Amino acid sequence: MSDERVTVGFVGIGRMGEGMVRNLLAAGHPVSVYNRSAARAEALAADGARVAASPADAAAGAPLVISILADDASTEAMTTGPEGIAAGLAPGGVHACMATISVELGRRLAAAHAEAGQGYVSAPVFGRPPAAAAGALFVVAAGPEDALGRCAPAFDAMGQRTFEVGHDPVMANIVKIGGNFMLASLIETLGEAFALTRRYDVDPDRFLEILTGTVFPAPVYKIYGEMVASDRYEPAGFKLPLGLKDVGLALEAAQARTVPMPIGSLVRDQFLTALARGYHEFDWAGLGRVCAEDAGLPVRQEGEDAGLPVRQEGDDAELPVREGGE
Amino acid sequence: MSDERVTVGFVGIGRMGEGMVRNLLAAGHPVSVYNRSAARAEALAADGARVAASPADAAAGAPLVISILADDASTEAMTTGPEGIAAGLAPGGVHACMATISVELGRRLAAAHAEAGQGYVSAPVFGRPPAAAAGALFVVAAGPEDALGRCAPAFDAMGQRTFEVGHDPVMANIVKIGGNFMLASLIETLGEAFALTRRYDVDPDRFLEILTGTVFPAPVYKIYGEMVASDRYEPAGFKLPLGLKDVGLALEAAQARTVPMPIGSLVRDQFLTALARGYHEFDWAGLGRVCAEDAGLPVRQEGEDAGLPVRQEGDDAELPVREGGE
Amino acid sequence: MSDERVTVGFVGIGRMGEGMVRNLLAAGHPVSVYNRSAARAEALAADGARVAASPADAAAGAPLVISILADDASTEAMTTGPEGIAAGLAPGGVHACMATISVELGRRLAAAHAEAGQGYVSAPVFGRPPAAAAGALFVVAAGPEDALGRCAPAFDAMGQRTFEVGHDPVMANIVKIGGNFMLASLIETLGEAFALTRRYDVDPDRFLEILTGTVFPAPVYKIYGEMVASDRYEPAGFKLPLGLKDVGLALEAAQARTVPMPIGSLVRDQFLTALARGYHEFDWAGLGRVCAEDAGLPVRQEGEDAGLPVRQEGDDAELPVREGGE
Amino acid sequence: MSDERVTVGFVGIGRMGEGMVRNLLAAGHPVSVYNRSAARAEALAADGARVAASPADAAAGAPLVISILADDASTEAMTTGPEGIAAGLAPGGVHACMATISVELGRRLAAAHAEAGQGYVSAPVFGRPPAAAAGALFVVAAGPEDALGRCAPAFDAMGQRTFEVGHDPVMANIVKIGGNFMLASLIETLGEAFALTRRYDVDPDRFLEILTGTVFPAPVYKIYGEMVASDRYEPAGFKLPLGLKDVGLALEAAQARTVPMPIGSLVRDQFLTALARGYHEFDWAGLGRVCAEDAGLPVRQEGEDAGLPVRQEGDDAELPVREGGE
Repeated sequence: MSDERVTVGFVGIGRMGEGMVRNLLAAGHPVSVYNRSAARAEALAADGARVAASPADAAAGAPLVISILADDASTEAMTTGPEGIAAGLAPGGVHACMATISVELGRRLAAAHAEAGQGYVSAPVFGRPPAAAAGALFVVAAGPEDALGRCAPAFDAMGQRTFEVGHDPVMANIVKIGGNFMLASLIETLGEAFALTRRYDVDPDRFLEILTGTVFPAPVYKIYGEMVASDRYEPAGFKLPLGLKDVGLALEAAQARTVPMPIGSLVRDQFLTALARGYHEFDWAGLGRVCAEDAGLPVRQEGEDAGLPVRQEGDDAELPVREGGE
Repeated sequence: MSDERVTVGFVGIGRMGEGMVRNLLAAGHPVSVYNRSAARAEALAADGARVAASPADAAAGAPLVISILADDASTEAMTTGPEGIAAGLAPGGVHACMATISVELGRRLAAAHAEAGQGYVSAPVFGRPPAAAAGALFVVAAGPEDALGRCAPAFDAMGQRTFEVGHDPVMANIVKIGGNFMLASLIETLGEAFALTRRYDVDPDRFLEILTGTVFPAPVYKIYGEMVASDRYEPAGFKLPLGLKDVGLALEAAQARTVPMPIGSLVRDQFLTALARGYHEFDWAGLGRVCAEDAGLPVRQEGEDAGLPVRQEGDDAELPVREGGE
Repeated sequence: MSDERVTVGFVGIGRMGEGMVRNLLAAGHPVSVYNRSAARAEALAADGARVAASPADAAAGAPLVISILADDASTEAMTTGPEGIAAGLAPGGVHACMATISVELGRRLAAAHAEAGQGYVSAPVFGRPPAAAAGALFVVAAGPEDALGRCAPAFDAMGQRTFEVGHDPVMANIVKIGGNFMLASLIETLGEAFALTRRYDVDPDRFLEILTGTVFPAPVYKIYGEMVASDRYEPAGFKLPLGLKDVGLALEAAQARTVPMPIGSLVRDQFLTALARGYHEFDWAGLGRVCAEDAGLPVRQEGEDAGLPVRQEGDDAELPVREGGE
Repeated sequence: MSDERVTVGFVGIGRMGEGMVRNLLAAGHPVSVYNRSAARAEALAADGARVAASPADAAAGAPLVISILADDASTEAMTTGPEGIAAGLAPGGVHACMATISVELGRRLAAAHAEAGQGYVSAPVFGRPPAAAAGALFVVAAGPEDALGRCAPAFDAMGQRTFEVGHDPVMANIVKIGGNFMLASLIETLGEAFALTRRYDVDPDRFLEILTGTVFPAPVYKIYGEMVASDRYEPAGFKLPLGLKDVGLALEAAQARTVPMPIGSLVRDQFLTALARGYHEFDWAGLGRVCAEDAGLPVRQEGEDAGLPVRQEGDDAELPVREGGE
């Protein structure tokens, strides 16, 4: 939409950030990168990125700085801490936070930047590392008009589409949080439905084929359905404790506005049960195991999986991954 | 798959049965129809159907009789009651019940027909009247091999695809029940997610656009999402009390095999709350209203719906409708 | 209150009925007893009871017949079946059903007796076999004024107090069902609270001592608290499947009047989980084991129970027991 | 148990602290009091208390300082803030925190005091202002042996009994949190049971009489039962938002140790629903209103309350009140 080339600071070079930076560079934006463990940042130098010494250094001289870090704590530390983004960003500069963070932190970051005469945009994404590498992320963005305008060229370079949802940054945070809650609910729903049908001897692969072949053709049903049908949850795409954390973000935001979310509460308890059983390394689809066990079902064996369909490339482009470098 | 023309008895001429019979006739099958209120059956005489005087009469002389009635009670009455299907069907004949009935009734019907030397198949469908009219239903079928074989030509005439799931008829019932449970869960999930985001002033239409444009592209999200986003639940496609009934079928079947279904339980309570508020005529998506009210949100006004996307033809082909003539 | 001696038919000689009949006899009432397995009835002959050949026979000639059977099915069979109570009871006679039955069955029994020109009273009890033996039951009774009056002398002989709750018999059924729901909820509550405190290394016996020594001095907290604290659920006072059944009665009655009971739903799922784990023989307090396991706690060992307080006689006089002879 | 008179600093003169200080003075302990709004502290000067200028001042020279403040935030501010307790307390001194605070804060306070060479005890109480005035509180205490010993004379002066639960202070916090969770669950349980029985036209006062006269004789059932039966929740003894907060403490502590607490989650959602309906000023028993409304019941009218039993003095001695001065 815009061919303006703004200089971009970029903080947090994880599996997501790597692809995003490459796409910014490819679109002609000079990028100044910072990551806590420097090796990941340095790997991008070959592509033309400048390696910064601190978040403040990455932000210095850039009209726009993007961050995508692992969680609230690291985002806050790298933004408002000493040597943080806010310390380096010039007045009038804009910080776009693309991680999945709490509404409460979104609010604090907006306030901190406003106090420093800087702009702030929340812009979490739907998508995983392959989508980040392909420039095919979906960006959900909210913030003041002019700050959004500043971000547009960068968002265009990294994503296939940007959805602007309002001028209060937390509106983007809540949309992302709401979307992840819906995925968690879908997983628990699959868990219960497969437990029910398995107890009536219906072949799980057949049941999945029917679901995705009739009423539920979306890729998410295929991806999570395959994990639940096969009863295998490793290696994880998005680990179970992260699922608990994101549902926690939803419940916290809901409580602040007196929104009861009974499915959210229930899913939270299921995640806790899963962790009490030691499933920390499972994908968050591992709720399927909890449901199966609670129905008295044995773990499904490899041999039973004969007909398991092959996952196709790109199917899971929109699913959550924990963002962020270290 | 087969071009064999079997004579078919058909009991229950509702919005679904009408289209199904027309497709059977169009495929060259002689059909003998019965409906409690005769007018609906007689309307099919012009298309070549023979109007029977009773379920027994519809079954007499037919190697296959199909029923699709409103609920367990009517299905049982028209099958095993005096003048019922079992009384008219010759030994060796097959009854295919295509309604959404309980696992328990599926079991009893199978036993009753077996005792009479007859075959029984459970074959519920995913699809609504337009899909029935178009011969585009999805049929989920279970029963003895030979009985399934007998049904195949008729299923081919009425549906776009048949999924055979096993030789015990109740396996088809449980698949359909599990699918409807998943839809009920999806509705409650939408209700909670929209309540959350509305409380943060996110435009519901925008939120829906994001959901269906990114992670949840399935038509069911669009259809139910539009109802929840617009907060309008009439006219109903599938009335709320029917949703309660179907979730009840899931919970009953689950209890029989010791399967806890916490989301099922929770959704049941939400349906009860909806009925206590007088929403009997709402579509089952009306759980969205319950969620919104419990979060302190006002009913959404017409004027706010400016951007509501138009529903497209055929989008809801697979959704539930209450089957059955009277 | 009354010293009128009415002749009483008594159907169902289980652990409860035995004591109840002895108290009727002791108060001077002639009693005619029936039990499906005759031995239990004959054992009462020595005390002066007449052994009847059928429920109808027990009812014949008696102005009042009492039944206390195991469940809905046996109650209905022995009331309205051939040779049932209704067949033998003279017009104007009264049937008092003292078992914990469904509201729906209460309604059907009332209607059946009314049609036969007979009276019907629902009069379930709070209390267990020792209380029955001691004539110390609590009777909750509902029915037409004159029918209640007919029952009063017999209730006085068997119980320490009768609570009349209305003229529609099902009002007594719902009170008993509501009370049992509250006990089931209390058990699950204890399960969660003990799981929480055990995970923080608080000694369960100490926690129980604090609860019953401060805010929760009722015997029910002591009785169920001891089972949960010691994590031992056998021998059962009231078996887990019966708890599931009674919560089911509450949910069924609640649904009929659109009453959401989320704790009821949740407890039902916990009972199902318990059964899926094979705890059929546990006391219904066995939900405590489910809660502990779901929190990752090991089964508590004998050796840890050193300080377990001794249960005192009479503590559990009001708790549920499954009524009824066979 | 001990007649040693230790000098006591006391921070937080609310409705609880007032009575507690008077009992310390009556037992011969010199007391130095601090409250943010000085008037409440000065009112105790007439009884012989010294009015301190800050928490640090109250703690200066006292071997023991007690605090009972409104919540985590005020407790932390007055303990570790500038001019806080830790700043004034001499090495070797002990701080006993008697408020209902989070496990996490209990841990932080213990660590902060340990670092300063001071002792720390968590000692929350069951009881309300009248019990505090009467020296009849129940104290639940945990901390190092010697620190507990230091507190014993003061606890004896303020309470009728002290339950020591371990050497890790947070064990006392979790016991109190677990107890309050159980009360919240009891309230919701009453709400559901009364909604059920009211829908069957059972008189609520009669139902309460039966409950407390048979299986549930504890005062808590009488107190909360009367509020739910009469459907009147003002004036509040313990306001609804405080109930939400305490259940939140339970859920937070539970999550930290992977303990699912489904009733806790459910009750939290009910509190949110209540707040969304504007019931901020209700007693936390106001969940009864939510349950009644969700079952379609109208608010109960005054006139219906004719038979409401009178609450007796002292019945509610153990119930929660929000501790703490301002």
